[in-house]
Amino acid sequence: MPPAQLDATFAALADPTRRAILARLAGGDASVAELARPFAMSQPAISKHLKVLERAGLISRGRDAQRRPRQLEARPLAEATEWLERYREFWEGTFQRLDALLDEMKAKEQ
Amino acid sequence: MPPAQLDATFAALADPTRRAILARLAGGDASVAELARPFAMSQPAISKHLKVLERAGLISRGRDAQRRPRQLEARPLAEATEWLERYREFWEGTFQRLDALLDEMKAKEQ
Repeated sequence: MPPAQLDATFAALADPTRRAILARLAGGDASVAELARPFAMSQPAISKHLKVLERAGLISRGRDAQRRPRQLEARPLAEATEWLERYREFWEGTFQRLDALLDEMKAKEQ
Repeated sequence: MPPAQLDATFAALADPTRRAILARLAGGDASVAELARPFAMSQPAISKHLKVLERAGLISRGRDAQRRPRQLEARPLAEATEWLERYREFWEGTFQRLDALLDEMKAKEQ
């Protein structure tokens, strides 16, 4: 996976509105008007966020020319997850050591 | 998990040098000089990236005042992974449908 793709994916995810748009699209395709509705945002503001998501390949446009629904794309999400999964062993290990330390402290207190 | 933390985490991950620094630190603590070595980059350039990672809480400074080693922090990585994991069902489903479609096309060809 090219580093530029991961750069674009993570940059696109670094915004709460864009993450909320992806969450909405995970439930099914939606037009720009449908996507704008739950946000206190103008359609042009939403369109800007959609452009960022589209350029990153996280969403694409469906075939219906009238509605132009946006749909979620699987691959960049899968690749970003894959990248982060490499660190699971690290953070699970850290949390286990913290848990063990807390148990030890509790045992000493009693 | 506050949205601002996820914003900072994903923004920090949107750079190949910063991702490489995290990969290095997953193998153990390292000083700024040690981190700068594998990159064709000055120590000030690396320090800038380290500041972004530190502000995002992805790394912290160890206790050795002389070496000031940087260490990887588990929590923001775990939270970002958790956020992305919600989409696993979506992209695994998409890939399964693509596989099924390809199998169908191959069967028709034969």
